[in-house]
Amino acid sequence: MAERIFNFNAGPAALPLPVLEEIQQEMLDFKGTGMSILEISHRSKPFESVLDETIARIKSLLELDDRYQVLFLQGGASLQFCMIPMNLALPGKPAAYIDTGTWAGNAIKEARTQGKDVEVSASSKDRDYTYIPRDFMVPPDAAYLHITSNNTIRGTQWREFPETGGVPLISDMSSDIFSRTFDPRPFGLMYAGAQKNAGPAGVTLVIIREDMLARVPQDLPTMLKYTTFADNKSMFNTPPCFAIYVVNLVTKWLEKTIGGIARMEEINRQKAHLIYDYLDGQDFYSGTAEPDSRSHMNVTFRLPTPALLEVFLKEATAGGLVGLKGHRSVGGCRASLYNAVSIEAVRTLVGFMKEFATKKG
Amino acid sequence: MAERIFNFNAGPAALPLPVLEEIQQEMLDFKGTGMSILEISHRSKPFESVLDETIARIKSLLELDDRYQVLFLQGGASLQFCMIPMNLALPGKPAAYIDTGTWAGNAIKEARTQGKDVEVSASSKDRDYTYIPRDFMVPPDAAYLHITSNNTIRGTQWREFPETGGVPLISDMSSDIFSRTFDPRPFGLMYAGAQKNAGPAGVTLVIIREDMLARVPQDLPTMLKYTTFADNKSMFNTPPCFAIYVVNLVTKWLEKTIGGIARMEEINRQKAHLIYDYLDGQDFYSGTAEPDSRSHMNVTFRLPTPALLEVFLKEATAGGLVGLKGHRSVGGCRASLYNAVSIEAVRTLVGFMKEFATKKG
Repeated sequence: MAERIFNFNAGPAALPLPVLEEIQQEMLDFKGTGMSILEISHRSKPFESVLDETIARIKSLLELDDRYQVLFLQGGASLQFCMIPMNLALPGKPAAYIDTGTWAGNAIKEARTQGKDVEVSASSKDRDYTYIPRDFMVPPDAAYLHITSNNTIRGTQWREFPETGGVPLISDMSSDIFSRTFDPRPFGLMYAGAQKNAGPAGVTLVIIREDMLARVPQDLPTMLKYTTFADNKSMFNTPPCFAIYVVNLVTKWLEKTIGGIARMEEINRQKAHLIYDYLDGQDFYSGTAEPDSRSHMNVTFRLPTPALLEVFLKEATAGGLVGLKGHRSVGGCRASLYNAVSIEAVRTLVGFMKEFATKKG
Repeated sequence: MAERIFNFNAGPAALPLPVLEEIQQEMLDFKGTGMSILEISHRSKPFESVLDETIARIKSLLELDDRYQVLFLQGGASLQFCMIPMNLALPGKPAAYIDTGTWAGNAIKEARTQGKDVEVSASSKDRDYTYIPRDFMVPPDAAYLHITSNNTIRGTQWREFPETGGVPLISDMSSDIFSRTFDPRPFGLMYAGAQKNAGPAGVTLVIIREDMLARVPQDLPTMLKYTTFADNKSMFNTPPCFAIYVVNLVTKWLEKTIGGIARMEEINRQKAHLIYDYLDGQDFYSGTAEPDSRSHMNVTFRLPTPALLEVFLKEATAGGLVGLKGHRSVGGCRASLYNAVSIEAVRTLVGFMKEFATKKG
């Protein structure tokens, strides 16, 4: 039996143990094919079944209506930052963005690089990205409004999605897709690098509504058009088969073992509150996000001094709690509590934090 | 013990059994980290070691000098069809291509879509892509000459690379990288979707020379610039970690178990000759590629009638020989003999072919 630790990595991140065991068990012989999932043709029936099942389950979990298509791309959210304006900007209309930190900033930069008419409708830069902007106007003629639903670096999250008055919402959901229920209907496009809540690195989920597909300019390079993926069920060329297979197992676990997204959301709320409630009742650690903008996926906090931070991280790792170092751009601590992170892991972390504070505080 | 079959898939394709066993063995705990390779951070030391080792081994296997960088991208060769002209075409100079079938044709199409000055210097379309063109002029001022080193669909292969008089060669090597030795120095860029000879689907190897990097226009989208990958050791954003890890294992197998590319080439030659020698000595099956253009990776042949083809494929599959159906665009049969396909597999196939011909011929 392998020694498994508590994994608070920001991504790639923890996966459900039963998923890893299933991958392991069938690595040499996928469903009686006599081949590994790594060796079967993407055009074979066994792989097409994986693909169809994954699409159907994602549509069901997110309660998507028939106007939405689930696509599997590559290149991560970063490639989407350029594909979105390339495919969905409209001439003479602003492309609106909300700036909530690094990832939103990168999305804005890529739209500007292409010479699109970018309007930043709101930014939380004034208070170091510690909150989600609330009072802003979306230009009523905007081609879309782009947001980052959860900021992994700053530990902030749109707890409610903004009203846009009919302007299609586009969201980078890399770090909170499948973590909570929401009404998908205002969204023209949702996208997510899989390596946090959905699977391994190497596949990007793109969920796109049919009116967005109608905007795609026909003269774009083939592999940069959403229509190429929509028209070919993500198989214009060889898709990242293994990563899609793991997404299938992860979403199956979410559906069958957890019991769906509403139940997952409740567990995630409990996990986040275990830490936030603790943080609010002491003064050794300090949370960095403003309370009403706190993420249920990434809890960011600081220690009194850099020296204590270093000891904290060292002792945590020695105690089997890994991945707690904050993003290199901001420092501090970050505990990522994605779907596959258990309540037990979070309880162990809070226990460790208490003990450390008592010892050093 | 899993029942493994003989896998002649064109891609994704057979992988070495010891590689699959190693993946299986460490799936729950990668190198004592207490985490799966699917769960570790791409910025962690264990993953950086995987990346560094893979790069070093590829440089050593291909005997690349210091002017070359090994990059890991996503999107398959199809994304390279658009990135190459985007990054490497030069204003006022033709981008030269040799048309040897579907993949070369797709590369040409993507260059034209971008309005580049494309010159098709030679084509084998006149004889249904059954051969590799030999007598052609490369425009001396061409920005590059693009070829497809092996055509999986037609079973043709550049047995020797063309003389270009100093024009940088660019080759799609998706289906024959690591299968034979060659002098890399005339190449400005080599690229390969991994899912044939190098690993699983989901990562694209790009090997680029420094003078090519100097051409990259700075105003391209970040994720479409080769310099983004070269400047950040393929980690501007999260790379396809698992696929890179498998490439590491496959190249390690090639180096340590096989003994390097020269030895692999000799084995591949033996495998190909087992089938070609048999084909040349009978008249039931007919090879489709002209003898001097035959591929050592994909052997394409036809049966006397469509009805016999159907029986052949059915009986082969029943006998544990899978993946022999030709590409849907051309029909017939195709046996892909990539590095991980054993001599035993090829002998078994030839035995089956003989028996079938005797029975039905």
